[in-house]
Amino acid sequence: MQEISDMAALMAGIGRAARAAAAELAFAAPEAKRAALEAAADAVWTGREAIIAANAEDLAFGRDKGLSPAMMDRLMLDEARIGSIVAGLRSVAAQADPVGAVVAEWDMPSGLHIRRVRTPLGVVGVIYESRPNVTADAGALCLKSGNAVILRGGSESFHSSRAIHACLVAGLKAAGLPEAAIQLVPTRDRAAVAEMLRAVEFIDVIVPRGGKGLVGLVQKEARVPVFAHLEGICHVYVDKDADPEKAMKVVLNAKTRRTGICGAAECLLVHRDVAATLGQGIVDALMAAGVEVRAEGLRGSRPASAEDFGREFLDMIIAARVVDDVDAAIAHIRRYGSSHTEAIITESDAAAERFFTRLDSAILMRNASTQFADGGEFGMGAEIGIATGKMHARGPVGAEQLTSFKYLVTGDGTVRT
Amino acid sequence: MQEISDMAALMAGIGRAARAAAAELAFAAPEAKRAALEAAADAVWTGREAIIAANAEDLAFGRDKGLSPAMMDRLMLDEARIGSIVAGLRSVAAQADPVGAVVAEWDMPSGLHIRRVRTPLGVVGVIYESRPNVTADAGALCLKSGNAVILRGGSESFHSSRAIHACLVAGLKAAGLPEAAIQLVPTRDRAAVAEMLRAVEFIDVIVPRGGKGLVGLVQKEARVPVFAHLEGICHVYVDKDADPEKAMKVVLNAKTRRTGICGAAECLLVHRDVAATLGQGIVDALMAAGVEVRAEGLRGSRPASAEDFGREFLDMIIAARVVDDVDAAIAHIRRYGSSHTEAIITESDAAAERFFTRLDSAILMRNASTQFADGGEFGMGAEIGIATGKMHARGPVGAEQLTSFKYLVTGDGTVRT
Repeated sequence: MQEISDMAALMAGIGRAARAAAAELAFAAPEAKRAALEAAADAVWTGREAIIAANAEDLAFGRDKGLSPAMMDRLMLDEARIGSIVAGLRSVAAQADPVGAVVAEWDMPSGLHIRRVRTPLGVVGVIYESRPNVTADAGALCLKSGNAVILRGGSESFHSSRAIHACLVAGLKAAGLPEAAIQLVPTRDRAAVAEMLRAVEFIDVIVPRGGKGLVGLVQKEARVPVFAHLEGICHVYVDKDADPEKAMKVVLNAKTRRTGICGAAECLLVHRDVAATLGQGIVDALMAAGVEVRAEGLRGSRPASAEDFGREFLDMIIAARVVDDVDAAIAHIRRYGSSHTEAIITESDAAAERFFTRLDSAILMRNASTQFADGGEFGMGAEIGIATGKMHARGPVGAEQLTSFKYLVTGDGTVRT
Repeated sequence: MQEISDMAALMAGIGRAARAAAAELAFAAPEAKRAALEAAADAVWTGREAIIAANAEDLAFGRDKGLSPAMMDRLMLDEARIGSIVAGLRSVAAQADPVGAVVAEWDMPSGLHIRRVRTPLGVVGVIYESRPNVTADAGALCLKSGNAVILRGGSESFHSSRAIHACLVAGLKAAGLPEAAIQLVPTRDRAAVAEMLRAVEFIDVIVPRGGKGLVGLVQKEARVPVFAHLEGICHVYVDKDADPEKAMKVVLNAKTRRTGICGAAECLLVHRDVAATLGQGIVDALMAAGVEVRAEGLRGSRPASAEDFGREFLDMIIAARVVDDVDAAIAHIRRYGSSHTEAIITESDAAAERFFTRLDSAILMRNASTQFADGGEFGMGAEIGIATGKMHARGPVGAEQLTSFKYLVTGDGTVRT
């Protein structure tokens, strides 16, 4: 009990400091935020040896803990990866500042002039797993959007995150911004996560970054709103009016370019009329590329079982099914999809329109690879994550979606009759 | 226990029906929604005698229950008020349909064309008190925005709401839309409210309409996101550079036009330099108009006590205080405000800019009355309520803010390298 009571006090202190910083950040000059990010980038590059040394401690801890090679790889920092972190910070620094931007303005017959302008959300909580670069990426995006952030990194990346965080704080100091604008929870104790999920008083939104276990826990337990996607069960539907060449290219890219990302295709649906021809050709090409195809109505690597639909493989495996028409494809996706990203391959405007209108995933694509589901590919610059909820933020969440708005109304002694 | 278990089953049935209706409504033709609202308006007008008869039952129940005259007045329907309900339905019918509207579109170097289009939120739950017209207003706005709605009216307006709801359903039927698009909880049992607040599976957002007791309960207990304001503690700050005539006009209007609405001013702040002159003049005028002024640093009706600041009087009472400058006014509002609406009266652009930048209420006004805080006055047509939260919706919530969005992306066999 003693421990939990200390944790509550620790997290409340962090929360109060974040609220105070947020109040100041909300009207910080764009130039100050830019300067802080540039100074942080300088500090990361200058301090790269110390960061790599801290990372070595984490790697040793990870080896002792028996982390998988994939986890160890995600954890590892070398000069090249630190270079990417620096480039990421500079890229967010160079982005347009969303705060204060006028989203809409209009006049009313009463004489009022109304502007709707962007304003920060307040305090963002980010809960992530092993990748230490999230410390820099999430810290930078929150600062750019005028939000204070409370970062809670994975216990595996504890030292690396701390070293990177120190550089972000150095940047804030150099620019004269409150140091509590970017805070890192200074303990590995998991009770800190539970505190964050309940901290409605101090945190306005939680962004979990990690596997299904983490995201599911956060979605289930959080009292604070959450921007997240639980899974990316992305579908590609090859319509009877698909261009065969485009279909082949897009399906192969959607499945095989990178299999571990949330925008990777996990299920291929093929219109009955082209199943034996184009559909089978795509399945054969997937298998030739090393993909295990679990198929229904097509000759794949093996027959699909019921559990293969609605499943996120994140691997060189795809489910495939023949459907009667675009409506059957829509029905399948409604049943098995995760509202992340789905693509239709078709030259028929009517079929594409039906797919676009009747599905409500965050991202719907026509004749393009689901692997484009990414803030950078949408022109948003960095993203803090991809959201599949319908409240506030959806799809790739960049600096703009980390803002809210307020109305600025001007009159001339205008009164209501 | 039997009763609660039945209630859970009842509400789950309503929830499932709403979800199914929402899936269909999401792509309903704008013309069908318009026709349904026009038909509902016709049905309300044609059925006005039955509605007034149902209302008489509620009024009798209210008299037995000993409702206050104000509550009885809010509950009462006559032909004029039914005429307003009909006009409201027709006005929402005539509004532009937000669903499918392209909010933004752009091209990427990859060859992708990206559109961000409005899509309904899904299912809206509306929990309200005695005013039966909310049944029509909320039902209409949700239908316009493509959302299914679950209405839970106050027990006092049970029969009136049921009669109005029947007209809405008649409208849906006439237009061939699912009847479950607008459902009314068919019981007075308060356990239904508790079920709605927890129904994350079936309800996407809850809108409470009523007094502080209801809204506070909903905000505290809801697991579903909430659009609401708990209180409208609106401030008017009269700056040293205020135009005296505008200041006098605006403060009197902000306090006295209607005292019972959330946009009514509850606190007057006056810059020290003009306290004895303009400030005292305004206080005198307020008192002459019948307002009780609880003042600090000014000669009011009586001295202000600590509890008078941050208090929503909703009556002919106002707190008043002298402050050192615009920063002190900002500090006062940050401490005592409710993030609803605040006004500054000044001819100084610098002071107005500071007030606009450093405060983060949903609505900030310059030289205009806080009584303009209203969807109609913002040109949004009807509003389902006013929100002070920062997630998703803020200020007057009209049909547009009852929508989310999705990305529609088109390529030409476009793959990611």
